[in-house]
Amino acid sequence: MTHRIAVIPGDGIGKEVMPEGLRALEAAAARFGIDLELEHFDFASCDYYAEHGQMLPDDWFEQLKDADAIFYGAVGWPETVPDHISLWGSLLQFRRRFDQYVNLRPCKLLPGVKSPLADREPGDIDFYVVRENTEGEYSSVGGKMFEGTEREVVIQETVMTRTGVDRVLKYAYELAQSRPRKKLTSATKSNGIAITMPWWDERVKAMGAHYPEVSVDQFHIDILAANFVMHPDWFDVVVASNLFGDILSDLGPACTGTIGVAPSANINPDGHFPSLFEPVHGSAPDIAGKGIANPIGQVWSAAMMLEHLGHPAAGQAIVDAFEAVLAEGDKAVLTPDVGGQGTTEALGRAIAERI
Amino acid sequence: MTHRIAVIPGDGIGKEVMPEGLRALEAAAARFGIDLELEHFDFASCDYYAEHGQMLPDDWFEQLKDADAIFYGAVGWPETVPDHISLWGSLLQFRRRFDQYVNLRPCKLLPGVKSPLADREPGDIDFYVVRENTEGEYSSVGGKMFEGTEREVVIQETVMTRTGVDRVLKYAYELAQSRPRKKLTSATKSNGIAITMPWWDERVKAMGAHYPEVSVDQFHIDILAANFVMHPDWFDVVVASNLFGDILSDLGPACTGTIGVAPSANINPDGHFPSLFEPVHGSAPDIAGKGIANPIGQVWSAAMMLEHLGHPAAGQAIVDAFEAVLAEGDKAVLTPDVGGQGTTEALGRAIAERI
Ligand SMILES: CC(C)[C@H](C(=O)O)[C@@H](O)C(=O)O
Ligand SMILES: CC(C)[C@H](C(=O)O)[C@@H](O)C(=O)O
Repeated sequence: MTHRIAVIPGDGIGKEVMPEGLRALEAAAARFGIDLELEHFDFASCDYYAEHGQMLPDDWFEQLKDADAIFYGAVGWPETVPDHISLWGSLLQFRRRFDQYVNLRPCKLLPGVKSPLADREPGDIDFYVVRENTEGEYSSVGGKMFEGTEREVVIQETVMTRTGVDRVLKYAYELAQSRPRKKLTSATKSNGIAITMPWWDERVKAMGAHYPEVSVDQFHIDILAANFVMHPDWFDVVVASNLFGDILSDLGPACTGTIGVAPSANINPDGHFPSLFEPVHGSAPDIAGKGIANPIGQVWSAAMMLEHLGHPAAGQAIVDAFEAVLAEGDKAVLTPDVGGQGTTEALGRAIAERI
Repeated sequence: MTHRIAVIPGDGIGKEVMPEGLRALEAAAARFGIDLELEHFDFASCDYYAEHGQMLPDDWFEQLKDADAIFYGAVGWPETVPDHISLWGSLLQFRRRFDQYVNLRPCKLLPGVKSPLADREPGDIDFYVVRENTEGEYSSVGGKMFEGTEREVVIQETVMTRTGVDRVLKYAYELAQSRPRKKLTSATKSNGIAITMPWWDERVKAMGAHYPEVSVDQFHIDILAANFVMHPDWFDVVVASNLFGDILSDLGPACTGTIGVAPSANINPDGHFPSLFEPVHGSAPDIAGKGIANPIGQVWSAAMMLEHLGHPAAGQAIVDAFEAVLAEGDKAVLTPDVGGQGTTEALGRAIAERI
């Protein structure tokens, strides 16, 4: 059985880390006898926009829909295209049209990666953020009134559906159930956001009835963010709305020092459409073109993709490989963000060899 | 000239820390010859709700509107009253009806207070979060459709106005201008929340034209939260919408280890209505009744109140006093959260004596 992978490097360092992500992917595929068919696309990038005046070709859905997975780099080049255009015209389209309703991001202390938190060791922090990825606060519903005048009013609606919320809660409960600690934390703000969030709390409770083994707690987003810093060891699986999940899944990796190397999976658990795997980091215009971007976010995303495609051992081999390279600490190989003087390619090659 | 202060202890540890806040307030008033008239209120608490079925008497506005300031403890007792009822029925009413459109919170490393961040010293972190406090994501506009069915849809609107946004931006620019670094950071999410937030960015830019000396940057809320952990020294004044400000002003004090002792000012800069001063911490049901709550949040709020009432030296004397007591580190005096075995009252008395 061949897996068809759509490869989309995107912008900035996306184009630099993608070759290393592919190197790791192909090394793991070779070792585990996995058959991959890669198809490369230049759209969903600001370069494409410069040429065509839009981020995607009209038939992008047709072109991508039969892929088994999408392997994405990073998108955005604010100097030429405003972020809300480049993002809504690409990544956010994929998430919505391919109904990738789960955004899954690990937060994990890694050997050899310095955490900004005091007194934390690998093993202390190891949790997942499960983010609703298609609705909620990221709506395009709303508008302006009295535009351009002193009376101007701007409205944007948060839209949650029972279908949308229940399915991501179900995913989160299942994930919690599958882990040794079986613990789920829900991000709420029902004391302030008094229409949607009390209802979110009710749905969390209702779904919990089906998972009696999972212990559940909830925190308002303000104190939850604080607890990521103060007590990151408390968490096992954290489930959150689109916006809260966005914040927590950057904050979590920031606490572990891994924001530059964390991966992210945009999953359509029903399998009707391709899921999408990308690093958490963006296109990083400040270091783009220098060849020093850390490729581990892309490499780790490849691991999540292989796991999703039914090859957990191959995924694990990739994770073991970059953890070993990090632990080794060879400065000639590590990129500057993790204390070395190496290049994107040097680090990518070291990981691939290890696999 | 006499300042009329409305004193509202609220719930839980609010009732325990308030006497110590008043002790510090009165000590500073005595030393600096400030004339205070305190009036005590038992409403805006869940005890009041238990008796009256509402958080506030019908004429609360009349009773409070002529005070020069409101000195509040903490509100909330989820065991008996759901948070969205107790909060929307009290604190959030005050903020709105008294048009306290600025929520100001300092984030500062203190001597003797352990920060969860590695390698940070007092002096390294010292910034303010300026939060819009009356509109935005905290709306009561929205509702449910197909309620209780599989098709259920729940909608809540974020409502921003030019008046509301511009005035808080003005306050933030003025504050930044008054500080040595003259630096303002705006919290946005214009890449995802694509109606209100790009407009917020425009207003930040427009207001900036009047403050050429202030240097401005902006971050999306996800990476901004991450940067509070990774680079807290970058910030001087951070301005944010109601929800983003809520998150950042808990996260900031979490990074400095001061979430249990940070103060908060809900300000009506126009002076038409009383401003309100309260600790950031809540009513803390878990430690309420034990007499071990740290009173510094309430004490520090008293300092902000005196500053607001035109007595900055008296406010500073309070801050100097609790910083000295913290630096001294007498375990018999400090409460357990800062490494001692003292009581709320012992710590409160030590601070008041120092003043
Ligand atoms: C209690 C809650 C409604 C409130 C808020 O979100 O504004 C609190 O978190 C705060 O920051 O003062
Ligand atoms: C780029 C942006 C629109 C996106 C988001 O907010 O979803 C990003 O921050 C992410 O988390 O993948």
